[in-house]
Amino acid sequence: METLKKPQPFPCIEASDVSLRTSNPIREVVDRIDTSQMNKNKPMIPLSIGDPTVFGNLNACEETIQAVVEVTKSCQANGYPKAVGMIEARAAIAEEFTVPNCSVTPADVILTSGCSHALQLCLEVLLEPGKNILIPNPGFPLYKTICDYIGAEARGYKLSPERQWQIDLQHLRSLIDSNTRAILVNNPSNPCGAVYPKSHLCEILEIAEETKLPIIADEIYHEIVFPGNESIPIASLTNVVPVLSVGGLAKRFLVPGWRLGWIVIYDHHNAFSQVREGLERLSTLIMGANSLIQAALPKIIKNVPHSWHLSVLRNLHLQANYSYERLSHMMGLEPIMPQGSMYIMVGIQVTKFRDIESDIDFCQKLLNEESVFVLPGQCFGASNYFRIVFCAPVDKLAEAYNRMSDFCRRHIIS
Amino acid sequence: METLKKPQPFPCIEASDVSLRTSNPIREVVDRIDTSQMNKNKPMIPLSIGDPTVFGNLNACEETIQAVVEVTKSCQANGYPKAVGMIEARAAIAEEFTVPNCSVTPADVILTSGCSHALQLCLEVLLEPGKNILIPNPGFPLYKTICDYIGAEARGYKLSPERQWQIDLQHLRSLIDSNTRAILVNNPSNPCGAVYPKSHLCEILEIAEETKLPIIADEIYHEIVFPGNESIPIASLTNVVPVLSVGGLAKRFLVPGWRLGWIVIYDHHNAFSQVREGLERLSTLIMGANSLIQAALPKIIKNVPHSWHLSVLRNLHLQANYSYERLSHMMGLEPIMPQGSMYIMVGIQVTKFRDIESDIDFCQKLLNEESVFVLPGQCFGASNYFRIVFCAPVDKLAEAYNRMSDFCRRHIIS
Ligand SMILES: Cc1ncc(COP(=O)(O)O)c(C=O)c1O
Ligand SMILES: Cc1ncc(COP(=O)(O)O)c(C=O)c1O
Repeated sequence: METLKKPQPFPCIEASDVSLRTSNPIREVVDRIDTSQMNKNKPMIPLSIGDPTVFGNLNACEETIQAVVEVTKSCQANGYPKAVGMIEARAAIAEEFTVPNCSVTPADVILTSGCSHALQLCLEVLLEPGKNILIPNPGFPLYKTICDYIGAEARGYKLSPERQWQIDLQHLRSLIDSNTRAILVNNPSNPCGAVYPKSHLCEILEIAEETKLPIIADEIYHEIVFPGNESIPIASLTNVVPVLSVGGLAKRFLVPGWRLGWIVIYDHHNAFSQVREGLERLSTLIMGANSLIQAALPKIIKNVPHSWHLSVLRNLHLQANYSYERLSHMMGLEPIMPQGSMYIMVGIQVTKFRDIESDIDFCQKLLNEESVFVLPGQCFGASNYFRIVFCAPVDKLAEAYNRMSDFCRRHIIS
Repeated sequence: METLKKPQPFPCIEASDVSLRTSNPIREVVDRIDTSQMNKNKPMIPLSIGDPTVFGNLNACEETIQAVVEVTKSCQANGYPKAVGMIEARAAIAEEFTVPNCSVTPADVILTSGCSHALQLCLEVLLEPGKNILIPNPGFPLYKTICDYIGAEARGYKLSPERQWQIDLQHLRSLIDSNTRAILVNNPSNPCGAVYPKSHLCEILEIAEETKLPIIADEIYHEIVFPGNESIPIASLTNVVPVLSVGGLAKRFLVPGWRLGWIVIYDHHNAFSQVREGLERLSTLIMGANSLIQAALPKIIKNVPHSWHLSVLRNLHLQANYSYERLSHMMGLEPIMPQGSMYIMVGIQVTKFRDIESDIDFCQKLLNEESVFVLPGQCFGASNYFRIVFCAPVDKLAEAYNRMSDFCRRHIIS
């Protein structure tokens, strides 16, 4: 009988405001880009996503893999870790990130489900609706995504392309008001590939000290810097300013899918006692990172040889140089040489093109005609730029740049 | 010079309301229980945490381990999965959870960082501040934790211990108002070990249909039911009511640390089109579960033999029976026989004890005197009960129950 009853359709169930206002620009562009008009005669070359594993040329170190295989086989790490992470793993991170002026203990480390989760916790503990935080512009779009989710304001401070993307400190200062809760600094940076010298980091710290604002340091590209540049954790340069530094295995160990991130709490004078409690509470919601990777972490950090890191860096540097060299010879484009990370920003002189209206237009037409996929600067808050991920091997990059060069030649005003 | 400057201490940085109001009662009790007075002559027997891996008697299946080892060695699954999860893994879940009246495709599955994360997404997409959801009481405390975090109200509907913890439907009905957004049903259940028969699930669905409320079904203990009971996904019993079912590998595959959970969207008439979009947006915040486990998931589901599941169940059932049998002979205690999951609730007749004021008092004194750790019912919203996790092997349980029996005899009014 019951099965014969004609079902009364349900009304549409409303989704919450917070869910509908949560929007990740990269994901939206990547998911919504119209690939149907793509040139089917040319295989797609995706230089769009910050995933170094896409092309198979940058592989995780054998020791990294071995550590996880051993832990998995042992069957000793399948249980729930503490919400803030396993003590041994936190100890390994603490050792790695202790700096001379501020020693870090395992109690200062919280493990998270990727650096994204670390950022979410840090922003959630410092912000509330009505408050604001200063973030880099151009910058990694997740910062704003999380602020939108929280209902707080993300205020973009300008970076100066003509000074290798250093912060326009005057502009940064001008954004601070009584509702500002923190300054977020991303160094080395995505999407700019900037690596700040000590002097610049000290200037930022001076402002933080003066205005009594803590710093969130997104240092996930720590150590991914090219010769002549230094990777300096900002916390190592202050005896005063409290710093939450976030990082993860994703980039430096070439395993972004593994979702292991961390927060390191640098706190000289207990300014963060409440923040620490808040972070610990928030960490109990989803209970953090995969236990196998947590258990393998001490071995990964200890066993991956320095030479492996150097060889990855050599490749990245080579690909960065090659990219810059090729791009700087293309009409209408102005690449800015990166000093680290995996990204190069390329300015588009739209007025020099016949029929390119914007960075989005450029990227869509490049995809349609040449099957090369790069992300428009608008994903990062920078019109008339595009970002290239230079993780692909040089031969793939060569092919991509050949096509891009043809594309520019075809569209330039001659 | 700079190092000589005397640092000006920073003022205490305030943590957000949301972070400080986030509180997981289990974690708080477990972390705050005073173990300093524990009887040092007796080794601790923890029957407190719902982690089946604690005692080493319940181990993940070899095929489960093998699947992850192979994926890890292949080095083919280190990259970012899509935020909603890898298509192959979603397909495996879709196949597993398709029910005759509502087929599920990979597009209806979202993979998450544990079932906790799945619950967080479901509650965030349906609730807002000012809205409420009905949750079981006694119930898994994370439901309220997440509601507090969101700023929404969790209204507990009564379960009746005298009817094997079935829902007091009249009470449930009485809680519904215009701000109610969903009914959460946990079956099989934590902490009660209840498994609802078809008829009871249909009664719940009737109320949902009538009041046009969607259901969140926490079915993480799916299939963990003892002979004579049936594990029925609630979505299989309705052609009308939209259901978000959450689950995960944690319990059924004995790998809670791996943090792989899922949401299955059962939606007959597109009532969830907005909810689906909201869930997908929210999933981009932290990008979900570990890629190795995702890639191994199809093999895990396919290769773990039915006989393995049966043998785990046999052990759990044995331990449940043994627990019930022993506990029902203890003075002042009233265990309620579970029909599934890993938990048994035990009533405490406080008036029969000389010096036991409450469940918390009982648990603290039991720990102090006998080094047996069980969780007070108040963690789950049930005074004068305590919860035992019966995952320990029978010899360990025997020792724990011997001590508990001594304890009761000592404290009972004679
Ligand atoms: C600057 C920056 N921060 C954080 C992240 C997030 O890292 P994860 O993949 O560990 O969440 C990324 C990833 O691209 C990034 O570029
Ligand atoms: C009823 C219930 N739901 C959800 C969960 C959370 O599962 P997970 O460990 O996958 O986050 C648990 C864990 O104990 C539980 O008992």
